[in-house]
Amino acid sequence: MRPDPKDYRVKPKERVRLSKWPTDTKPLYHSREDFDVRLHENVTALSSQQDLFYASNKHAMLIVFQAMDAAGKDGIIKTVLSGINPQGCRVTSFKHPSAQELNHDFLWRTTQQLPERGMIGVFNRSYYEEVLIARVHPHILRAQNIPRELVQKEIWHERYESIRGLETHLTRNGTKVLKFFLHLSKEEQRERFLKRIDDPNKNWKFSPSDIEERKFWNDYMRAYEKCLHATSTEQAPWFIVPADDKRNARLIVSEIILDALRALTMSYPDTSLERRAELAAIREDL
Amino acid sequence: MRPDPKDYRVKPKERVRLSKWPTDTKPLYHSREDFDVRLHENVTALSSQQDLFYASNKHAMLIVFQAMDAAGKDGIIKTVLSGINPQGCRVTSFKHPSAQELNHDFLWRTTQQLPERGMIGVFNRSYYEEVLIARVHPHILRAQNIPRELVQKEIWHERYESIRGLETHLTRNGTKVLKFFLHLSKEEQRERFLKRIDDPNKNWKFSPSDIEERKFWNDYMRAYEKCLHATSTEQAPWFIVPADDKRNARLIVSEIILDALRALTMSYPDTSLERRAELAAIREDL
Repeated sequence: MRPDPKDYRVKPKERVRLSKWPTDTKPLYHSREDFDVRLHENVTALSSQQDLFYASNKHAMLIVFQAMDAAGKDGIIKTVLSGINPQGCRVTSFKHPSAQELNHDFLWRTTQQLPERGMIGVFNRSYYEEVLIARVHPHILRAQNIPRELVQKEIWHERYESIRGLETHLTRNGTKVLKFFLHLSKEEQRERFLKRIDDPNKNWKFSPSDIEERKFWNDYMRAYEKCLHATSTEQAPWFIVPADDKRNARLIVSEIILDALRALTMSYPDTSLERRAELAAIREDL
Repeated sequence: MRPDPKDYRVKPKERVRLSKWPTDTKPLYHSREDFDVRLHENVTALSSQQDLFYASNKHAMLIVFQAMDAAGKDGIIKTVLSGINPQGCRVTSFKHPSAQELNHDFLWRTTQQLPERGMIGVFNRSYYEEVLIARVHPHILRAQNIPRELVQKEIWHERYESIRGLETHLTRNGTKVLKFFLHLSKEEQRERFLKRIDDPNKNWKFSPSDIEERKFWNDYMRAYEKCLHATSTEQAPWFIVPADDKRNARLIVSEIILDALRALTMSYPDTSLERRAELAAIREDL
């Protein structure tokens, strides 16, 4: 029961109705133990792929996570990517932008954090917030200080175009882009919020503003649907991952990342005959 | 005799044959004194426009200079922009990229230096080097470590597309983009090199590698022609400035920048009645 990446992938130009995409599916594991074994296998494979990826130093990989609160972004990053050498992997969480960042175009601050060759860059939230939260809450857009005559109805389509342009550019220059939307049901979010309130060890994860955002659930779903439709491309696909079952989500995400790494042409740098002779000589001296 | 920006502008999709564009034109000034007066007028006007630009804090401006060696980029930046408050203007000269920069996509390093709202950013050389020097000298492209399968014949067209995409994105987000190619004749470059060699105070400006690059003159002209054709757009136009007469070039460039600033909708931030009352009260206390 290996998950097939294609099952979760939004095809280019595909219309997305999130109510038709499951938040829960048949588990890909038989038991807790079976899950542990499978996840461990994937993490080990990821780690060895990443080692090759780092050594070959040709490609970069950008992994974007977007989701509603409590959908499990942090947990996935922790469990799926923990086996990886941190020297080759950098996670950036995007929170409130600074005044300086707001004074630039909306792609500027995330661009600084893009992974270089050999690196896996993980964006916990991303420039996609600029067509999600900013679309749901127009005052955020207003705070961006853009000349008024440039803020028109087309702005969202222009932003999708900017994002597609950026991702095409990155792909052509050697960065593989993967984007995950963790698809959580509203009911499961409620359960998780309740746990965060009831369990003192989880209190820190809860903020009253989470409840405020929950009231905009339907607006968010609409913003996600438009965004997933407009920005899932051949080179930089979106994957909609059912997230009500955390274990399932972790298996799916790890499998998709592995699949993408394996599809890259990579090799450890060649050692020329000359270089080998040189190494042999040095060995002699030692 | 005010220069008209339209005369120097490359129209969108216009084919460019540089041999048809003058490197020298009838002077726009009668005498050295007349030049000084006119330039001073322009610099003063630029300074007051920039003051408003900075205070209104809505737009940014990116000014790109590209040219062959000794065409006068540094001199224009010095004379035309010296009157401007340096707090609102930042010049970045792009030299050899660092190893970290080479490990990113070709737009990454310049993007970091893009001007924020209220600022005029000047690029002395720019991302355009990536379709000029890199096109003339293929080993530069090879040193960029891009996965081999992505370095195809289309790479230049893809790069033009990335650049157009970036500039459209910037324009839509409030950055006005102006691009100047200082068009120098090969003979005038020779004269200037000779001066740099003969005048001890100018020796520091001369490097033997300049002579090496001069040998690729025709290749550069072809690379510029293709680039100017492919990347001059309605929003982010190229201006071809005759550069054999330095004074003329300075008048033309200052006029074009002024023209672009005047075309922006700018105003000093509104002061509300409330705020005025508050200020009056503070005044009383002082």
